[in-house]
Amino acid sequence: MSGDHGHETIVDAALLALAAHPELQMILVGDEPTLLRDLGARGRAGEARLRIRHASEVVGMDESPAKALRSKKDSSMRVAIDLVKQGVAHAAVSAGNTGALMATAKFVLKTLPGIDRPAIISAIPSINGHVHMLDLGANAECSAEQLLQFAVMGSALVTATLGIERPKVGLLNIGEEEIKGNEVIKQAAQLLQASSLNYIGFVEGDGIFLRDIDVVVCDGFAGNIALKTGEGVARLIYHFIRQEFTRSIFTRFAALMALPALKALGRRMDPRNYNGASFVGLNGIVIKSHGSADTQAFAAAIRVAVREVENAVPARITRLLAEALPAAPVAAVKG
Amino acid sequence: MSGDHGHETIVDAALLALAAHPELQMILVGDEPTLLRDLGARGRAGEARLRIRHASEVVGMDESPAKALRSKKDSSMRVAIDLVKQGVAHAAVSAGNTGALMATAKFVLKTLPGIDRPAIISAIPSINGHVHMLDLGANAECSAEQLLQFAVMGSALVTATLGIERPKVGLLNIGEEEIKGNEVIKQAAQLLQASSLNYIGFVEGDGIFLRDIDVVVCDGFAGNIALKTGEGVARLIYHFIRQEFTRSIFTRFAALMALPALKALGRRMDPRNYNGASFVGLNGIVIKSHGSADTQAFAAAIRVAVREVENAVPARITRLLAEALPAAPVAAVKG
Repeated sequence: MSGDHGHETIVDAALLALAAHPELQMILVGDEPTLLRDLGARGRAGEARLRIRHASEVVGMDESPAKALRSKKDSSMRVAIDLVKQGVAHAAVSAGNTGALMATAKFVLKTLPGIDRPAIISAIPSINGHVHMLDLGANAECSAEQLLQFAVMGSALVTATLGIERPKVGLLNIGEEEIKGNEVIKQAAQLLQASSLNYIGFVEGDGIFLRDIDVVVCDGFAGNIALKTGEGVARLIYHFIRQEFTRSIFTRFAALMALPALKALGRRMDPRNYNGASFVGLNGIVIKSHGSADTQAFAAAIRVAVREVENAVPARITRLLAEALPAAPVAAVKG
Repeated sequence: MSGDHGHETIVDAALLALAAHPELQMILVGDEPTLLRDLGARGRAGEARLRIRHASEVVGMDESPAKALRSKKDSSMRVAIDLVKQGVAHAAVSAGNTGALMATAKFVLKTLPGIDRPAIISAIPSINGHVHMLDLGANAECSAEQLLQFAVMGSALVTATLGIERPKVGLLNIGEEEIKGNEVIKQAAQLLQASSLNYIGFVEGDGIFLRDIDVVVCDGFAGNIALKTGEGVARLIYHFIRQEFTRSIFTRFAALMALPALKALGRRMDPRNYNGASFVGLNGIVIKSHGSADTQAFAAAIRVAVREVENAVPARITRLLAEALPAAPVAAVKG
């Protein structure tokens, strides 16, 4: 029911996803009369693979996570996550308030054994296609052990959903030399080296996009700064491209000629194709869509959920946690 | 003598700078025979505004800063900074090892009264032209008081060199709401609010490039991640543009048509035009050029030095420090 564009965008995206995934069944969670009206208006009221589950409340985009969790027990967000907990749904997808969604998911589903805190992971475009980065903002400050857990979760997710056997894992830092960075990062590097993960060392900000790497690990502060900085630069360059190509009749003509190439470029960088960040480390699958997602973008987030369900990502994380870590990794390094 | 491209690039840049600034006098610091040969080869051995000061050692790009400081007392870097200390030169410009340059500058020149640690500041392209960001990597961890000092230094530099009376100062954070971020950032926000600076609140990663803002303040870890992430995304987009425009004969022709616009775009984003980061907070002016700078880029770094000398940046910082801070800002907030 939430997100910047409201329920109609979500309903359209759900119908798009049903068409794209013949096995998919969906439950729309929210105000039943509203959702019935939306479906009716599209001539899809009796859709076989689409049910409605009524929820009487909506969490506001700016509401405090703690307050939403405490006082809105019948919010669409809460009911959707409850359905995952009950085993009625395999995954929940929401475009709502990130903090409230994370707090609710953590409270209802709990973290996997061995995971202190869930993290937010997403694919972002890079020179080799794309790279997965975590944490993107759930945990502003992290311990070295948590960064190691993030690495395990990211590796398991990439192996499960992309079939990459030993994903290359890098640790985001401000230099590639061993002496750079703060204590937490240096200790995390030691833990990663002692693990069975395919750890390739420190990665700098530009390396996220330019190096051959599958998983970039960082705390939620650095991850969020990097993600949003990247978005900002991409939008700035588009702004400049538009300005340069509309400067004169000649450049407008050139733009027309260049349109196919510019459009192809746009598709490759289109954040809508990368919509759908996963909350990993939970007993269940929860996907966060960007609040501003349109129909196509929200459908991409549903696709992320489908892929994680099909590949049983939480079970893979649990398995890799047991495999990847030496018997008592923290004690071994600290001692 | 250092930098990735060596002394010849620096000599060419110096000659370029002399032509661009009729009042400028320069001292080339390094191996005298080498530099004399370079000048001779260019027919400029007797250049009136260009002197050579011999230095027998060179700090390597990967050398430890502490070791360089301790053992290479006659390095080109050290001698150049000594010349600033002695009042023989108004500023030092180097493309050498950043850590060693910072350690040497701090040791020789000392910080200004009221400044705990120097910071690295640079202009970067943004939607309104450009924005200054600090710290870009000198201080991985910072206190709230240091972030406030960075804000004062950034404001003074922007006022002095660009004539902007009350520069708009933002604090880099992972959300614009008051509740976001870690304790240091929240406390820094309070200090900035209590100061006389034109503080406009938190800025997210995309806001660096897209908002109307003059100075972005952050610790060296976040600043370095943001700067390099931005460079990485820009390079990724160029890579994609090249790929898309070379895909077929048709797109190659389109690229030809679009060349003037693409070139103009390239000029606006060209990191060479933004070369030259200032070490602010020192009793003297030291400018760090990117190690990979070519002639044009190194000349841009010299231009930054000239502008800071002409506008007496260190004195402005000292003055603004006295004006901007309330009598006992830290005690006032902590109490």
